[in-house]
Parts: sequence; structure tokens; C-alpha cells
Amino acid sequence: MKVGIINVTGYTGAELARLLSQHPEVKLTSVTGRSAAGQKLGAVFPHLAGLELTIGAELGDVELVFSAMPHKESAKEVIPLLKQGIKVVDISADFRLKDASEYEQWYGFTHPAPKLLGEAVYGLTELYRAQIASSQLVANPGCYPTGAILALAPAVKAKLVEPDIIIDSKSGVSGAGRSLSLQTHFAEANEDVSAYALEGHRHLPEIVQELKLLSGGKSLQITFVPHLVPMTRGILTTCYAPLVSGKNEKKLKELYMDFYKDEPFVRVVDSPPHTKHTLGNNLCLVYPTIDQRTGKLIVISCIDNLIKGASGQAIQNMNLMLGLPETTGLKTPAIYP
Amino acid sequence: MKVGIINVTGYTGAELARLLSQHPEVKLTSVTGRSAAGQKLGAVFPHLAGLELTIGAELGDVELVFSAMPHKESAKEVIPLLKQGIKVVDISADFRLKDASEYEQWYGFTHPAPKLLGEAVYGLTELYRAQIASSQLVANPGCYPTGAILALAPAVKAKLVEPDIIIDSKSGVSGAGRSLSLQTHFAEANEDVSAYALEGHRHLPEIVQELKLLSGGKSLQITFVPHLVPMTRGILTTCYAPLVSGKNEKKLKELYMDFYKDEPFVRVVDSPPHTKHTLGNNLCLVYPTIDQRTGKLIVISCIDNLIKGASGQAIQNMNLMLGLPETTGLKTPAIYP
Amino acid sequence: MKVGIINVTGYTGAELARLLSQHPEVKLTSVTGRSAAGQKLGAVFPHLAGLELTIGAELGDVELVFSAMPHKESAKEVIPLLKQGIKVVDISADFRLKDASEYEQWYGFTHPAPKLLGEAVYGLTELYRAQIASSQLVANPGCYPTGAILALAPAVKAKLVEPDIIIDSKSGVSGAGRSLSLQTHFAEANEDVSAYALEGHRHLPEIVQELKLLSGGKSLQITFVPHLVPMTRGILTTCYAPLVSGKNEKKLKELYMDFYKDEPFVRVVDSPPHTKHTLGNNLCLVYPTIDQRTGKLIVISCIDNLIKGASGQAIQNMNLMLGLPETTGLKTPAIYP
Amino acid sequence: MKVGIINVTGYTGAELARLLSQHPEVKLTSVTGRSAAGQKLGAVFPHLAGLELTIGAELGDVELVFSAMPHKESAKEVIPLLKQGIKVVDISADFRLKDASEYEQWYGFTHPAPKLLGEAVYGLTELYRAQIASSQLVANPGCYPTGAILALAPAVKAKLVEPDIIIDSKSGVSGAGRSLSLQTHFAEANEDVSAYALEGHRHLPEIVQELKLLSGGKSLQITFVPHLVPMTRGILTTCYAPLVSGKNEKKLKELYMDFYKDEPFVRVVDSPPHTKHTLGNNLCLVYPTIDQRTGKLIVISCIDNLIKGASGQAIQNMNLMLGLPETTGLKTPAIYP
Repeated sequence: MKVGIINVTGYTGAELARLLSQHPEVKLTSVTGRSAAGQKLGAVFPHLAGLELTIGAELGDVELVFSAMPHKESAKEVIPLLKQGIKVVDISADFRLKDASEYEQWYGFTHPAPKLLGEAVYGLTELYRAQIASSQLVANPGCYPTGAILALAPAVKAKLVEPDIIIDSKSGVSGAGRSLSLQTHFAEANEDVSAYALEGHRHLPEIVQELKLLSGGKSLQITFVPHLVPMTRGILTTCYAPLVSGKNEKKLKELYMDFYKDEPFVRVVDSPPHTKHTLGNNLCLVYPTIDQRTGKLIVISCIDNLIKGASGQAIQNMNLMLGLPETTGLKTPAIYP
Repeated sequence: MKVGIINVTGYTGAELARLLSQHPEVKLTSVTGRSAAGQKLGAVFPHLAGLELTIGAELGDVELVFSAMPHKESAKEVIPLLKQGIKVVDISADFRLKDASEYEQWYGFTHPAPKLLGEAVYGLTELYRAQIASSQLVANPGCYPTGAILALAPAVKAKLVEPDIIIDSKSGVSGAGRSLSLQTHFAEANEDVSAYALEGHRHLPEIVQELKLLSGGKSLQITFVPHLVPMTRGILTTCYAPLVSGKNEKKLKELYMDFYKDEPFVRVVDSPPHTKHTLGNNLCLVYPTIDQRTGKLIVISCIDNLIKGASGQAIQNMNLMLGLPETTGLKTPAIYP
Repeated sequence: MKVGIINVTGYTGAELARLLSQHPEVKLTSVTGRSAAGQKLGAVFPHLAGLELTIGAELGDVELVFSAMPHKESAKEVIPLLKQGIKVVDISADFRLKDASEYEQWYGFTHPAPKLLGEAVYGLTELYRAQIASSQLVANPGCYPTGAILALAPAVKAKLVEPDIIIDSKSGVSGAGRSLSLQTHFAEANEDVSAYALEGHRHLPEIVQELKLLSGGKSLQITFVPHLVPMTRGILTTCYAPLVSGKNEKKLKELYMDFYKDEPFVRVVDSPPHTKHTLGNNLCLVYPTIDQRTGKLIVISCIDNLIKGASGQAIQNMNLMLGLPETTGLKTPAIYP
Repeated sequence: MKVGIINVTGYTGAELARLLSQHPEVKLTSVTGRSAAGQKLGAVFPHLAGLELTIGAELGDVELVFSAMPHKESAKEVIPLLKQGIKVVDISADFRLKDASEYEQWYGFTHPAPKLLGEAVYGLTELYRAQIASSQLVANPGCYPTGAILALAPAVKAKLVEPDIIIDSKSGVSGAGRSLSLQTHFAEANEDVSAYALEGHRHLPEIVQELKLLSGGKSLQITFVPHLVPMTRGILTTCYAPLVSGKNEKKLKELYMDFYKDEPFVRVVDSPPHTKHTLGNNLCLVYPTIDQRTGKLIVISCIDNLIKGASGQAIQNMNLMLGLPETTGLKTPAIYP
């Protein structure tokens, strides 16, 4: 089976190409990237020289396409592909939100195909496995939402917490992409931690949408603050919420173990996890605990923002869409140390 | 005026020596360190070679002593000095908590001089300036409490928030000290973020004690989770609490500006601060804001954990205890980038 | 085919286990580690939890063993295994040097089996492929020698340079292993570069031995200075030597291309390589050039010190010893960024 | 005495402002920066908010000016100032080279005032102290030349080495400046080491010019390869050269000690130095040794590239030009850890 990548020249595009090169059942045959069209992929990314692909201006004949375009641009590229019957995993935000008006509010553009928002499946595989398998268009989740929703889903679905949730995320700098900025200039980002987007990060509506669905439509108060930390990859998310009464640590652990018992890529762990233990693989580590002094649920999750938080999860979704075993090509352990 | 340092061989001891070497009004004449006694200070710390001090087994004749001993050991060293009339700034936790029973609970030892806990002044200079000036024994705050209490004091004192507070701190690795551990081994700590001490960090009772006093004795629910991030220095603390109704962003900012208006080492800033902007100096940057969607107060603070979080604040306190202007020797801007 | 690892608890042991878990033709069935015997491998190394192995005190029944013991200890473990007919790849230095007296000089012990030094094959695969394939005992090269010898072999063998060579290497901190030391304490190693072992690093005799063999036994002057740089993985080696007259850039490039034309794991590149482009894979990137002003050959090589510089090369050698295609289990591209 | 900075908005400009803010004898009264004119200095650099300066389009009335303009632009700014009798320390390369034709070769422009090249003094303070004191125009050395020349000057001047020198430098990323580039993008530079400018770095002619002068005009072969390492500040330079016969380690050390015996900012050290021991101060640490196996002199030097390698040395020169003690405002120890 042939697959392609639109806009391979960013970090999620390059990571898709790397992971697909190891996939035994599909072949990456076509990659595009406007500014680099005509160049060898190995000239832009030396670690991908072995793929012997040339970056094209147009996609070739493929069964499934990953779009790694920026939001707003991605929808434009994806809509004609869908009409041709090509399956699409969209890494951008363009089909994640169900309510078209949120694109105006959060992304500043009028969505070009609101009807597709109803057809697209939100690609958090653990929550929407069946729908993904039969979908033509999967909206791959943002990196922060992946870590936050997987951390909170069991507790929210079980109505274990009051609807008042704090999500404090710490991300490596690759999450800001390959475009240059002062914020991601080495001498500025190194030896520094900072919070950003306090007025509201674009990943918030995604988190709210999905947790609300999990809670059975109950209104939720969610405060989300992302932080940049001086490392390349990884997101650690610390979630806090008031527990409804009568829950204990043991039952909490059992609930989480049960919720994720058949999940190949979510591991409920016994001690606070490290982002390093997910570096380079598709795992999400989840550690739920209770602050006995205050009755707060605390859940910590770790992912590699470029893998489970983007390109790895996209391939997990592709596997389902193509009828392949979900873990195909994604079984590598983390790189340590 | 002559001053000394007990246990100069850790990071807070070395940082005290560095800062004191730049102080125009006092002279560091005596430093001790059991394992390194007899060595030149410059042999242990090349950057301090210019001080031409030898590490001794015993303190010489000094007016004021900084104790950088570990907890439990520090009290033993400090008690006889107090009897001799020497002024002491204790960097350890041994005199920070007012309730002696908390030493059993949190530190696992019976306090040797509970009466002194009433005499010692908690050395968060901005809160206890007058008492520090007339005290013989100042208990220098922990690094996390310094950042957290300065972030929250104006709001808690003004009863702006409900007594349900989340404190999420991100610390550089030097906070874990100079003793070796796998957690602070370079290949383990680099490219990694993790939470720790979820069962309760020893700095929590300090934070609770002081915020409760600020709130007029009201019972507070405080959840505190510290994290290690891969950098050497700096703590960024993100605090969350429900606002009582009717407060707005502008008034919040005014309240903070007013609370800290005469403070030389606290700066209320207009945008989310970076730890890098405090690297190497004694400032605490504080950024209060409101999450309008959820009615939460969010306050972010940044400090250099070894300076305002330890040795710089110790010298700020020393200045007051010796009748010197508070900022003496502490006016250097941060090192950037 | 079953294989085992002696002393899995260091970084090279863990990396062997990780790489072997991805190998399609052999199965890692037995791992030992004295201090951790009885523990689950996943308890020591969470990223290896999926292997479901328990660390044993003794090796089980295996066809080939990797020894990741420290030098001197390794020979003791390996000698009885050889007598049982088990194949061995020794990651330690214990069988690398042909001259037993060098063990006294460089490692401070009398070699327990000097006769084996003649039988062991130096496991730089690119130079000793045939001998490795038929050997029972392969002495896996040191990390620095791997990068340095691969950089210089074509030029030295072609007698392109005067026998006066400078080798300046820059290594990530994982090369110093998992044992704790002040030098590898995060706050000391971070934001720091330093040279070490100027009195003579233990990898020097290996480099001298092999380059001398390549030069046809000519006496060589080799100066080697290793440096620690603040990253986890990677070695960049910069080599300098006077060119014999009449060589030009184009011919130099051709010579290197030709020397390595059939090598799956050495890539001669067109621009100065980055260690990042080898992170996580078994490649050695080599960039030869000429300083036209001074007539010096400059060759730069990059490897991942834990893979081509240790565990990956060990598996490359294992593949040959077991009659498998050399690249089996080693084809993953580097992790980038 | 009032001083000014042209182009304060880069890292060397900001570092000048920071250091001058601590200088007891001069006052920084005027700073310019084209793109940021009209902004508060503290808006661009929060750590300099305490200076309460506004970035201007034009310089005010000052006695001495630092130009932190890029090369070619700097000469244009400086020439009219010299005519007005203002003293100038030029941080750019525009007056470092004595031979005007080298500007065409290395920098690609025709020097606008070749006559001034004869009048300008090369600002490596340790070599040109007297001339600097009486000069109106000082050309502040590049960062790499500062480390390399101070490492080699004693040996070259004493004719201790053959004229065949290798200089291998490892620099922190701030040396590449504040302008954005893929090379200095965090996710690219972090966890990476690379060599660059192998075709010839612009600092080479400076190094050649000065070492040739020191050697009494003898022709020298100098190979210089700079490397980027993942840290913010610091340059470690490793120099290699064949010793002329009959020199020993002890005499070498004495020669270096003697050469630098009165130097406040050069320290000859007994063990391989760390860049960390110069972080934030104006010291150059120099470690000379002999590789007894090969008869090579090895000298290692460390500096903070933004201080002794740029802004600190500029102030050292300013002190001399204004008749102040050379160390004024520059006595702070390094920040450690």
C-alpha cells in the first residue's frame, strides 16, 4: 500500500517519513513540500537519505495521505483529496473541532467545509478506535490534548472528579516546530523555563470538547497552561481536579488499569513517569494518584510530542484505516538514556 | 564586619561565598567543611580561587554565620553559636517551622531546641523585614516556598482567592544539591522532565504555615507538585486558585503592584516571565493574571533557586541583621542569555 | 537463536537489550547483573518493561553472549564461556589489545589469558569482517577508537598522510557510563566543555594499534585528546594530519567513497556532519577535506557512542558470527530532531 | 564619564550594557539600535529594565563609544565619531586586520578607511596594553582569536614550537549571535555537536596576523576548526603544535606562569580547565602541557565568549583608554554551577 505526506519539511512531516520507513506494510512513495520541491529528501534531512525520495510539488498516486500542512492551509489541500476517495490523516487542527464557529474564535478563519467536521473522526485512537477504522478522514489530535485527555479520560468518564480541572503541561521545544523564532533560538530557550499562551492556547477547545463528551456533556471548567522546557522532545502533563468523595488510591489505580487494560500504547505506571521513558516511541505513560491532604486527584502523563503527540499516533490511525494491526511499525522501545 | 560559612562545600555554600566576595561591607573570613577541611577553597571551587581562603574544621571569630549544613545537623551546629551571641542565618530547614511536631512528621527527627522555633524569624524578607532586622536567628526559606509564597502573598492576604490552591513548580537540577544521585546524573536528567515527591515534599509545611498566617489563620487546601527540568538554575512556579467573585485583571495587577511597590527584589511584570531573566540575581519576577473562562487566578513567579531561593536571600537577611541597606552586594542584573 | 547479556545494568547493557528486542532473528533470553539480580528488567529500565525479562545471577542456555562487564572483570566471566563453546562479543577492553603488556601499562592488571589476545578479533566490522564471521571471540572496539579509526583508515592505508596525527574528540556524557561521579553530575556537566585524560586515555593504545596495522606497520605519532560536551549521546571526532604532496580534494573524496563503497554503516558525506544525524542508529558519518592553506588533511566523523560506538557495533558483529545478514536489526534511521 | 553603545540589541551589546551597569566609574547614558529605536531597553531585554534607558536612533553626548554593529556597517558608524574626537572600542572586525586587502578576501568589501587600520590598536589587552591606553580606536578581538592567541602567545613568542599549529575550538551557541538561523534553532542545536567553516573561518586571519607578529614575523601554518556545542556560553580551545626539542613540562609551566604573572585576567591552571569556571566573568584560563609520547605541546584555554571574548574585554580596553584601573567593574567571579 502506497502512502504520501503533504508538507514533509517540518518536524511532524520528517517524523512521519522516519516512522513510515520502518513500517513493514506500507510504502511511502510520495512527499511534497512547496519551498523544497525538487530537492532530495536526504538533502533537507540527512537522516532520511536512505529513503531515496525526492520532494515533489504534487502528490503521486497513493491510497492514504498524511497532511502536515499548517492549519487553514491543510483543509484546502485535503478537501480535493477526499473527493478523489483518498483516505486522509490530517495532522493540522482543521478537522478536530466539531463546532465550526470555534475556528473563527480560535484560529481566525471561516472553516471552508463545516459539513466535513461532522464526518471527520477525532483521532485519539484509544477513544475512537472503531470510528477511525471506518473513516475516510481522521483529525489527528494536538500534542497537548493527547497527553491531557489520556491522563483524564478514565476519571472524567467515571465521574470521579468535580468539573474543575487544572492542566499544567511542560513541553520540549520541538513542539514549536521548525520555523524560526526568538522564543526557539537556542541561546534564549536553553537554561530557561517559561509559561505561554495564558490568554488561551489553541489546544484548549480540543481538550474541552473531548472531556465534555467523556463526562456525558457536563459543563467543565478547564484551565490549561503550557510551558516550554529546555529539551527537544517530550511533554509531561500534570492534571489536578477535586475528587468526589469516597475514592481511594487503590480503586483509582484499578479504574485506570481497567480503562487502559487492552491498550498497546498506554501504560499505567506505579511511580511518577519521566518523559525520557517515551523518547522515540508511541507510548503514553499515565500515573494517577491522590493528594490525601487535599482530596485532589493528580494525574501525570508523558508522551513524545512528535510521536504519540503527532506522527506516531497518525500512523496508529492509518493502521486502523487500512485494516492493519494497530501496532504495526510502532513497537520500538524508547531511546534511553 | 567578619562573617563565616558552615559547610561551604555544597552549592548554597559556594554561592554564598561567591556573593559575599562581591559584598562591599562584610568580609568572609572563615569557611568550614568537614570532608574538605585543610584544602584551599579554590581547589574545591576553582571560580573562588580569588578569595584565598582555606576550608577549616572550625569557624574563626565572626559576627554572623551562615549555616549551609543539612537539616538536623544544622541545628546542632547553630545552637552553641547562638549561645555565644553570634548572629545566624540558617539555610537549612531546622528553624523554619513553628510547630516542633512537624519536624517529626516531615523530617523524621525530634527537634533539639523547640523553644528556639519561637524565637527564629522566617527569613522571607518581604514579609518579615522588621523582625529580621532585630533577630539573632533567621531561618532562611526553602527555594520552592520563596517562589510560591511571593507569588501568592498579595492574593491570599487580600482574601482574593478561595482557600484551594494548586502550586506546580519547575526547578533546575542544582536544587537537588551537589550530592550524587542517579536522578541528577547528567544522562538521566538531561532531555527529561519528571514530577517527584507526590506523597508530600518537605517544603509543603513551610508554604502552608506562611500562607495560613497571611490568610489570617484560615484553613487552606494546598496541593504542591515539584518537577525537575533539564537546566542548572531557576524555578518557575505556576499557582492556580479560584478567585472570589468580582475581581478583574486591572485591579489584580494594581493589588500586586501596590503590595510590592517598595520591594527592591520583587518585580511585578506585564508578560509571562522567564527563569532566564533571574539567572544570577536576587530578583523574584511575579506575573498575576486571570483565566477569564474559569475565574481562576493564575500567578507565575521566577527565581534563581540558588540566589533568591537560597544564598542571595540569606545575604538580604544578613544585610538587615547587620543594619546595612538591604540591597548591599545584591544589585547585579541577571546573566543573559 | 538465543543470546544473553552479562551485566545489563549499565548503559551499553541496556542499549544492547533495547536493540536486541527489535532484532528479528535472535531472542534475548538471559540477562545478568549482580547488584540487581532478581529484579524485573523493567523495574531498572522502564523503557525495557516490554521485554518481560528478569535479571538473573547466572546466564541461561544461550548461543552467544555479550559481556558488558567492566575491564578486568569481563575477562574472568568470558574465559569459562569460551571453554563451553559459547560465542562472545566482549564490550570491555579486555581482548582489544594484542600486546599483553599494554594491559599492565594502561589498565593496571596482568592479563589472565594472553593467548586469547591472539585469537580474539578486533571488532571494527569494516576492517575485520571476514575474521569476525569465523571467530568465537570478538573484542568490540571502544567508542573513541571506532570514530577515529573509521575517520582515518582510508587515508592511513593509502599512505596519504605523514605519520603525525592529531585526534580531537567531543563526546556526550553517556560515554562516561551510568556510575555516579561529580564530573557527570548534571549541574557540573551541563553548560560546560572540558578536556580530560591529557596524560593518556585508555583508548589511545587501541587507536595506535589499529592505525599502525593499517599503515603497514609504520611507526605513528598519535596525539588524542577527548572532551566532554553537554549532551547525552554522540561523538564527533576531528582528525588532523599533514598530507603527503600532490593530493587534491576530489581524489581524496574518491578515495574515501571507494574505501567505504560497500559499507552499510559508513557514509561519506558532502558537508560537515552533525552527531544528531547519527542519534539512535548505527551509522558512522565521515567527512574528509583538505585545508588548502596548510596542506592538512582534516577528517570529521560522527557516531552515536552507544550504538556504532558500542552496542550497535556489537550486534553488527553478532550478525556476522551467527551467519546473519550484517544489517539485521540495525536499519533504523537516526532520531531527529 | 559618559559612554554609549551603538547597536545594543545583539548579545554583545546587551552584555556591554549589563557589565557597564555595574561599573563604578563610567555611566552608560546612550544606546542605539535601529530596529528597536524608541523602545525601552527593558522592553527588549527584561534583565536590563533597571537601567531605565530608552533605545535611541542617535547617540547622545559621550566620551567613548562601543560599536556592536556588524562588520562593514561598523566602520561607517565609527569613522565620523573618530573625527569628532570620540574614543571608540569597535567590537566588529572592521579594524582588526592590518592589511586592507584581507577585508576583500575574507569579508567581501573594500575597506572604507585603510589608513585607520594602521592607527587602530588590536585590543587583546594582554599584548597591547600600552598602545591601547593611548589609542583613540581599539579593535576588539574576535572571540575565537582571544582564546587561541592567549593560549599560544607564550609558546610562540618563546619560539618553543614549530610553526605548524592546529587550533580546535568548541563554542557555545551564543557566539552565533541573536539573529535567527536553522543552525541555532533549539531543536537543531540541542544534543548536537558539529564543525563548521572548514573552508576558512573569518577569525583565522586575525589569529595568523597576531601569532606571526609574536613569532617575529616567521611564516606560520595554522589550521583552525571551530565547532558548535550545545551550551549557551563559553569557548574551549585546544591547541596542538610540535615542540622544539629539549623542553620539559616544568619549564613550560614556568614560562607560561612568567608570561602571565602580572595579568589580572589570565590564570595559568594546574589541571584541564572547564568553560564553566569562566561563565560570567572576564577570565581566560590557560592550561599548557606536553604529550610526552609525541612531543606535542597541547594548550587548552577557556573563556566566556561574550565577556573576555567580547564585551568584558571591550570594557577592559575602555578602562585603559580612560585612564582607569584595568580591572574596574570586571572583578566578579564566575557563576557556578
